[in-house]
Amino acid sequence: MCMDILTFSYWAEITATIAFSATAVLAVSERDIDFFGAFFLGIVTAVGGGTVRDLILDVPVFWANDQSYIWTALFTSIITYVALSFFKKKLVHLLLLYLDGFGAALFGIMATRTVWDLQFSLPVAPVMLGVVTAIGGGLLRDVLAGNKTLLMRREIYAIPVLLGCIFYYLLLTHFPAYQIISGLACIFFTFIFRASAIYWGLAVPHWFKNKAL
Amino acid sequence: MCMDILTFSYWAEITATIAFSATAVLAVSERDIDFFGAFFLGIVTAVGGGTVRDLILDVPVFWANDQSYIWTALFTSIITYVALSFFKKKLVHLLLLYLDGFGAALFGIMATRTVWDLQFSLPVAPVMLGVVTAIGGGLLRDVLAGNKTLLMRREIYAIPVLLGCIFYYLLLTHFPAYQIISGLACIFFTFIFRASAIYWGLAVPHWFKNKAL
Amino acid sequence: MCMDILTFSYWAEITATIAFSATAVLAVSERDIDFFGAFFLGIVTAVGGGTVRDLILDVPVFWANDQSYIWTALFTSIITYVALSFFKKKLVHLLLLYLDGFGAALFGIMATRTVWDLQFSLPVAPVMLGVVTAIGGGLLRDVLAGNKTLLMRREIYAIPVLLGCIFYYLLLTHFPAYQIISGLACIFFTFIFRASAIYWGLAVPHWFKNKAL
Repeated sequence: MCMDILTFSYWAEITATIAFSATAVLAVSERDIDFFGAFFLGIVTAVGGGTVRDLILDVPVFWANDQSYIWTALFTSIITYVALSFFKKKLVHLLLLYLDGFGAALFGIMATRTVWDLQFSLPVAPVMLGVVTAIGGGLLRDVLAGNKTLLMRREIYAIPVLLGCIFYYLLLTHFPAYQIISGLACIFFTFIFRASAIYWGLAVPHWFKNKAL
Repeated sequence: MCMDILTFSYWAEITATIAFSATAVLAVSERDIDFFGAFFLGIVTAVGGGTVRDLILDVPVFWANDQSYIWTALFTSIITYVALSFFKKKLVHLLLLYLDGFGAALFGIMATRTVWDLQFSLPVAPVMLGVVTAIGGGLLRDVLAGNKTLLMRREIYAIPVLLGCIFYYLLLTHFPAYQIISGLACIFFTFIFRASAIYWGLAVPHWFKNKAL
Repeated sequence: MCMDILTFSYWAEITATIAFSATAVLAVSERDIDFFGAFFLGIVTAVGGGTVRDLILDVPVFWANDQSYIWTALFTSIITYVALSFFKKKLVHLLLLYLDGFGAALFGIMATRTVWDLQFSLPVAPVMLGVVTAIGGGLLRDVLAGNKTLLMRREIYAIPVLLGCIFYYLLLTHFPAYQIISGLACIFFTFIFRASAIYWGLAVPHWFKNKAL
């Protein structure tokens, strides 16, 4: 059973990696970018957040031990770049957007768990590094590509991850015996929140933003 | 007495953290930013420079041991975001600008001391990492927000810090018995230089810049 | 003989550092930048890529043990900034461009060797970190300066480095007895490829880029 969960979470992570690198290549494909730039940004987007997390935790970067993340990101970037017209089809693009939301949920919640296991700077680090793991790769991509980062858009992307990581931290603290089930619940919650934002085109409402403008 | 200095420097650092995160939120408040982006940038600005320093020194990040820096940055960001119209009042904004200059002076000089204590790569690292600690958070904020970084503005911000860190390194080397008093003197010098630049609106003069333009 | 190679590679690295920081100052000199910004970017460009590599490898940053890289970058930046009109002369600028290409080749190939010696995450890391060492400083410079990064230009800069690092990794693996001669050959190949791109103004051809545009 334990093995099943590990196997499941491994393939979930690979799926999330695919979604991250494919959406990265799509996000820069309108620009005058060559294949090197596309592959580089595809890999950075997929592994950048986790790399920053591992540097701050001072543990070996996660892809050093298991290179399948890098290879997955590379092959996905190549396929997306070559078959761009397919990936730009409305339904495929939409599917990728949902998968990307699932990836952010998964990476965030799993990072919260990793940091909690290390008992590193509770309660701040599990939540902060969960968020950094989920959105860090995308921030690096946007900065390197010269795009507006998601911090500057009203899109609801990071807020579900933030809430999910906070919930998961609370569940881990108060119900440590139910790590797996509460982790799945938090991934589900985070994903549904993000998926609703995609489906209904939700944005952070203006009345909830700074009033002085 | 030693305790007094520690207590004093602790509260000085908290004040500097407040100034860094409040000015960060003000710096991005004109943009179409939501509360997540504001809080994220408030925290990154306050702790980003010191985090980069600690990664290069290969010591645990400073906020892992004492989370009050993160909490201070978070609460300051929330209050600034909610009460933006108050913080945008001319006098409050000006006070924050001076406090931010004080913060840069304090963080820079204290980092020079930290690196000197570790005897890490003298004489280059104490000065370089002093400057990085003081301006690194602001650079990260500007890059993530898509603003022009201070490296590209003629504002006198980093030069006082650079000079202060060089002076402090020289004083530490030649008068190691007077660390505290020379540290205070260097913070004072750096702050007065920056405060003069704010007060008289000083910029790096054009004749001092590259002649070829 | 071994000493000779070490001495040679040391001076080659210093030459590459000079080229990196001089081209960095030239790259930002059109902008409204003061001397602090120019020196800061000159140093970051020269040592930034190697610093990121060392953080990921979790080894001490290379300039901590030998500060001549930092001093070289600083003095070169000062001289370039002061004598900008000289460095902007067509022939000098062109020479620097070729030297910069040589620097990227050298830093990339030598980093591949360093990572290979550490047996760190083969085969992915030697190639990836070779590329990061060669182009990382330039990426940091462009991001901090608000310029388009080379990932977003059709200039052939990183592709020769990528191919050179892949070739060198293969040669190291299959002919470990010929590290030096194959290293020199890969640096030569990488440089010649880049030099041809400069000489004939080559860019990644459009038909090789994404077809959907």
